[in-house]
Amino acid sequence: MGGDSGPAAILAGCVIARRRHPDVRFVLHGDEAVLQPLLAHRPLLSKSSEIRHAPSVVGMAEKPSQALRRGRNSSMWHAIDLVASGECRVAVSAGNTGALMAISMFRIGLIEGISRPAIAVLWPTKRGQSVVLDAGANAGADAQQLVDFAVMGEAFARAILGIDRPTVSLLNIGEEEMKGIEPVKRAGQILRESRLPIEFCGFIEGDGIGEGSVDVVVTDGFTGNVALKTAEGTAKLIVYYLRSALKRSVLGRVGALLASGALRSLQRKLDPRAHNGGVFLGLNGVVVKSHGGADALGFASAIDVAIDMGSSDVIARILSDRAGVAQLSGEGGSADHPDGSGHTKAVVS
Amino acid sequence: MGGDSGPAAILAGCVIARRRHPDVRFVLHGDEAVLQPLLAHRPLLSKSSEIRHAPSVVGMAEKPSQALRRGRNSSMWHAIDLVASGECRVAVSAGNTGALMAISMFRIGLIEGISRPAIAVLWPTKRGQSVVLDAGANAGADAQQLVDFAVMGEAFARAILGIDRPTVSLLNIGEEEMKGIEPVKRAGQILRESRLPIEFCGFIEGDGIGEGSVDVVVTDGFTGNVALKTAEGTAKLIVYYLRSALKRSVLGRVGALLASGALRSLQRKLDPRAHNGGVFLGLNGVVVKSHGGADALGFASAIDVAIDMGSSDVIARILSDRAGVAQLSGEGGSADHPDGSGHTKAVVS
Repeated sequence: MGGDSGPAAILAGCVIARRRHPDVRFVLHGDEAVLQPLLAHRPLLSKSSEIRHAPSVVGMAEKPSQALRRGRNSSMWHAIDLVASGECRVAVSAGNTGALMAISMFRIGLIEGISRPAIAVLWPTKRGQSVVLDAGANAGADAQQLVDFAVMGEAFARAILGIDRPTVSLLNIGEEEMKGIEPVKRAGQILRESRLPIEFCGFIEGDGIGEGSVDVVVTDGFTGNVALKTAEGTAKLIVYYLRSALKRSVLGRVGALLASGALRSLQRKLDPRAHNGGVFLGLNGVVVKSHGGADALGFASAIDVAIDMGSSDVIARILSDRAGVAQLSGEGGSADHPDGSGHTKAVVS
Repeated sequence: MGGDSGPAAILAGCVIARRRHPDVRFVLHGDEAVLQPLLAHRPLLSKSSEIRHAPSVVGMAEKPSQALRRGRNSSMWHAIDLVASGECRVAVSAGNTGALMAISMFRIGLIEGISRPAIAVLWPTKRGQSVVLDAGANAGADAQQLVDFAVMGEAFARAILGIDRPTVSLLNIGEEEMKGIEPVKRAGQILRESRLPIEFCGFIEGDGIGEGSVDVVVTDGFTGNVALKTAEGTAKLIVYYLRSALKRSVLGRVGALLASGALRSLQRKLDPRAHNGGVFLGLNGVVVKSHGGADALGFASAIDVAIDMGSSDVIARILSDRAGVAQLSGEGGSADHPDGSGHTKAVVS
């Protein structure tokens, strides 16, 4: 029921995904009176889907704390519950990000030793794709959380991108050790001095992301979200410049016509719908967030990511890597997270 | 003497600037033995320039505190001193940013009531240009500093872009009031509730910058620097994609040839050299920072910005606006900055 375009776009996305992945089965949560007629028009999807009625919806502007208090009968809550119970492997939503995160933490729980989840996205680069996290699960992060993000991002890159030994950097405003804000400097120190099995490459500046300088770029959710959206805005601006420049002269228009195949392939490469799907890392289950404004094609991309995640062993890898971190740093149990069980409360309050 | 390409590029930039602004006079600081032969080859620039020998140089990797302790005989210090004494209107440097800021604060001083300077840059947008600050003078900012940046950015937009009533937003990860990190939320509250004569438009997300949604985008120096460099990296990535796509087929190559005028005009628009020149706002004088990697054309752009600044009344505007803020918020003198005189010390330590 989430997203700016409503359930029609979501179901159309499921149709595309069903074609790409014939074995996948969907449980569609929401208002049956709305979903039933939409599904009736899609016989192929019908065969792979069942509708579970949910009487309420989490609004796009609702606070996470409100959603936790009042969202028990919502489609979002029901979807997450099926991942928590193990009935479904993955949950995909185009709804309210903060609510999705809060309900996921409450119902599915965090991997032991991880204090905050992060949203990981795939970022197109000159060398292919890199993982960037956190793209906006949190506003800010302390040093230990950034180290956790590095561990999670590295496991994600191995499992999803198939890179044997991914390189990892912290996003900063200079490459020298003295540069930047305290949590980033401190996280850099921990990653340099620890004997973690991570290929840590120090700091990277914003222009290094698109360059593909490393496989995993680690940052807090505020900076990561600003960077991601600034990149999207820049891509739109350049396409706008290109269009206006080509339109301005007859030669430009003829050239554009001849090169239309190339320009279309550029457009496909830049299409934000092809890169849709932020993965919540750090949970004991797979939840994928689609852009709220995604159309059918965009939502299908988010399902692609979800299916990749569902058939991977990312969670087991993070669990064992995080246990390694705890061992290296001599943590006794959850001693470094004495408030471990209180995190959900922090979200509620 | 600063910058990655050394004094030859700087002097070549001065030659271009001299052609654009025949009345400008230059004082060139640095090693006379290096500068003299370079200047000898440039008769036109010679007529408008004099060399002042400086025996030392601030290194690109030096800490601001080191530069303050040991930089008294450096070309950077000498250049700033001439602005402090009033002999020169503006100083332009491609050298070490942190050192340039620290020495400028120490020698030129801050506008009364401003606790931290910020670097303002002009950002190309769909609507023309916007001002973004802080692009990296500080790592982080508190709420009051963000409000100061809003005041300074607004004055800058009026003076340099000639906008009568510039619109101002805070960069954030959502448009709702509850979104984001504490300093940004608090600064938003102050700007909403104050009776400042600023057209405050709330929060803006990263993609709103290139859209040109507002004239002035305010953020802390960490986030601003990451956003700026991420945008540069994204622009490079897209040009790379475009080139590879056009090269891949004969039609693409022919089309590119026909549209070469349009593609060149795009390249000019995206040329980071055309947007070079970060202005240090908040100082009692004009200091402009050129990108360290700038070539002649890039350095000439930084001089353009410096000349615009030098002939504007930005500093007087900030001074009077900041006094207005103090009056509105009932500040007694510099009561809200009890450590006002200690800021330079903070940089030294």
